[in-house]
Formats: sequence, C-alpha cells, structure tokens
Amino acid sequence: MKARVTISLKNGVLDPQGKAIENALHGLGFDQANDVRQGKVIEFDLGNTSKEDAPAAVEKMCTQLLANTVIENYSIELLD
Amino acid sequence: MKARVTISLKNGVLDPQGKAIENALHGLGFDQANDVRQGKVIEFDLGNTSKEDAPAAVEKMCTQLLANTVIENYSIELLD
Repeated sequence: MKARVTISLKNGVLDPQGKAIENALHGLGFDQANDVRQGKVIEFDLGNTSKEDAPAAVEKMCTQLLANTVIENYSIELLD
Repeated sequence: MKARVTISLKNGVLDPQGKAIENALHGLGFDQANDVRQGKVIEFDLGNTSKEDAPAAVEKMCTQLLANTVIENYSIELLD
C-alpha cells in the first residue's frame, strides 16, 4: 500500500516561492497564470500496513512530522 | 479554470530530502514508511483561458520553467 500526502500553505499565508514562480511565468509571457501557490507532495510505501490501520498511521505522521499545521493544510490519499 | 502541476523526481534520481524524511519517520517509530520521495505541487489560476487552450499552455509552462525534464516527471490536472 502506498500513501501520497499533499501539503499546501493555508490561505492567507504568504507564499514567496509561489510569487517567484508567478513572476517568472509572467516574464516568459504566460500572463494568464495567477495566484500561484507551491506545495509539497510526499509519497511513500506503507509495506504491509493494513487498509484499516493506514489512515490513522499516515494522519499521525502528518501531524507529528510532515506538516506544520499552524500554516499548512494536508490531504492524504491512499493508493493500493 | 485552475491547474495543478505535480512534479516528482524520476525513478533512479537520488532524493536526499525524501531520505531525510524517511529517517525522521523511522526515528519517530513509523518503521512501516519506506521508499519516501518528495515532490512539488504547483497550483495556479488560468483566468479565462479556454478548456481547449489550457492543456497546451500548461504543458509549455512545465517544459519551459516548472519542471527540469532531465530529472523530473510532471503531471498536469485541470480543475474547473
């Protein structure tokens, strides 16, 4: 079983990296791209963790290490 | 219309950031997490770009700026 955790900054939190990408896109002529936000995606294998235990385990990983819940949101996808 | 571009390192490319996360997870007792890979996700608004033009435009942004196609794969999702 595999897990994919997507971590993005909460609304209202400044995203200088996203802003830099936006400026670069505009510089290349892609003026239609706006409101650029950059996040992280972390993928990993869960070995033979059961389908029942996986959501709680990954949730715990997110709150303890992967995401800074003060400024970041996370979403979890479990893939077979 | 919004676009989400997910960028991940190609298989075989070393991922020291993923390795660091893996070690930290093991240190916290999450021994089931293995083969950790970290990627990026870039979300942005495409304004009133039409559904027909959007895929080609985002593809062009990826190859020109967002992804380093020598070592990275990218996937594009378009959201209404």
